[in-house]
Amino acid sequence: MPYPRTARPALIIGSVAIDRVATPHAQSDNILGGAASYASIAASYFTPARLVGVVGGDFPEKFTKLYRKHGIDLAGLQTEPAGKTFYWSGRYRENFAGRDTLEIQLNVFANFSPTLPPAYLNTPFVMLGAIQPALQLHVLDQLPRGKKRPFVLADTFDLWINTARPELERLLKRIDLLVINEDESLLLTGERNLIRAGHALRRMGPRAVVLKKGEHGSLLFHPDGFFALPAYPVTKFIDPTGAGDSYAGALIGCLASANRTDFAALKRAVACATACASLTVESFSVNRLSSAGRKAIDARLKELSRMTRF
Amino acid sequence: MPYPRTARPALIIGSVAIDRVATPHAQSDNILGGAASYASIAASYFTPARLVGVVGGDFPEKFTKLYRKHGIDLAGLQTEPAGKTFYWSGRYRENFAGRDTLEIQLNVFANFSPTLPPAYLNTPFVMLGAIQPALQLHVLDQLPRGKKRPFVLADTFDLWINTARPELERLLKRIDLLVINEDESLLLTGERNLIRAGHALRRMGPRAVVLKKGEHGSLLFHPDGFFALPAYPVTKFIDPTGAGDSYAGALIGCLASANRTDFAALKRAVACATACASLTVESFSVNRLSSAGRKAIDARLKELSRMTRF
Repeated sequence: MPYPRTARPALIIGSVAIDRVATPHAQSDNILGGAASYASIAASYFTPARLVGVVGGDFPEKFTKLYRKHGIDLAGLQTEPAGKTFYWSGRYRENFAGRDTLEIQLNVFANFSPTLPPAYLNTPFVMLGAIQPALQLHVLDQLPRGKKRPFVLADTFDLWINTARPELERLLKRIDLLVINEDESLLLTGERNLIRAGHALRRMGPRAVVLKKGEHGSLLFHPDGFFALPAYPVTKFIDPTGAGDSYAGALIGCLASANRTDFAALKRAVACATACASLTVESFSVNRLSSAGRKAIDARLKELSRMTRF
Repeated sequence: MPYPRTARPALIIGSVAIDRVATPHAQSDNILGGAASYASIAASYFTPARLVGVVGGDFPEKFTKLYRKHGIDLAGLQTEPAGKTFYWSGRYRENFAGRDTLEIQLNVFANFSPTLPPAYLNTPFVMLGAIQPALQLHVLDQLPRGKKRPFVLADTFDLWINTARPELERLLKRIDLLVINEDESLLLTGERNLIRAGHALRRMGPRAVVLKKGEHGSLLFHPDGFFALPAYPVTKFIDPTGAGDSYAGALIGCLASANRTDFAALKRAVACATACASLTVESFSVNRLSSAGRKAIDARLKELSRMTRF
């Protein structure tokens, strides 16, 4: 990929899974899933991506090839030949009003305790996918402090807010950017007003917060200001799985690509994230995201800019 | 008010009411309500407004004074001295998740059949508030056709979609702009995807459609393109009553002020509408909207532009 000269690598730590997904309209089995898959492919459109995760001996070669097609550095992808890859099966309810997990086999993911390869320790942009907060902290502990401290984005989800709140609160004090959706924000802050919620989340630690609202777009709360971006207008909505992971991956990738973390860079990264998430929901798995190409992303960035100007 | 030289009058037809409103946090009684009140005050910030409605002999002089303070032309406000003004009492549920009408006394509004004063017949910008579609059609029948045909914005609500659909469908074929919220859009089109819903609504007749999403902003569907604007970030949310009416009134007022109805003018009008609606929800009744002044609206317009740029 022809990355800009400013581009720095982005390190993505998270789950790699084999999914079975049923929507109200269709279903798909044995497809590539996991936060790190969506995030690293999205990030790879902007900057060299490094993936840290674990798979079993059953992990299909075609998925590894797909990562490689995107130039993703797999030095951090452990394979446990005797084990099986994390398997998740879920079904979305009518009108995509929530989803139910039908089956979950943690397999090799159960003992996942990410140890970063020495070559990764100085990666300047890091995304902590929504793994246990204790593991997110464990990764942070391996990273340099002080001047060489990386920019850290973290994702989380309702399970950890409910079951690992103290660790999550410690994590929030040590990250630069929290990416969170509406429901998780309500659970974490108790605040229904999204603007007040964004401010409350920032008071918990992160310098900046992105509040995702699905089809209603997203909000960025930053010390230098507030930014709101509508969603890209999607009419072919197939499967929302991985949209949030693609969003976060594109965000860290876009920042790493510019090697900047100021307000203007974050706003542009929110737009990159919005474009990638909109591609992800147009197919099962990473299919559309992976095949779309940078041109399709740039066209959506242009449209996002055009459609919000007045 | 110092209106621009392009400014043309905007005619607003709708309910005038005395309200009692209870929210989960507070309540207020004997306050000015009704779609035409909110809409004409909002419109008056941009252009001379003309109000067509009906009140009873009990209508407080202070409310008439308030209209006059905003320079609103009241030649179309009938008073029936022997009757009582439309009275509405409602209560919002916890977290503003819906509202219940506690009491409704139609009074003089029961026989409201708007006859436009001759001086109003050539008003080039018309807003039909959410009265019965048959009455909206009755107003349209009084307006000129052909070259002198005004630009017509119409509002509606779920009751008419459920009980007067044939008349509503006839109305939609005769208006330029439909302003509708998410729930009404779903009821009317059966389409949950908001982008497809907007297109479906346009196929029902109106040249342009504005889909309002409350705190998530609004979407404009126009032959020349798509426009999306987030809501203004409100943290002091007091009472949503009249937000939609202020929105529609500001929209027609802003168009009339520029004497333009092209895509660019409509986008700017959506921003004016968003700013006025955000002021309305910051108090009971029209209090904040009326006292805010044009400067506060312009400040919000500027912030809306700033906060969506990347």
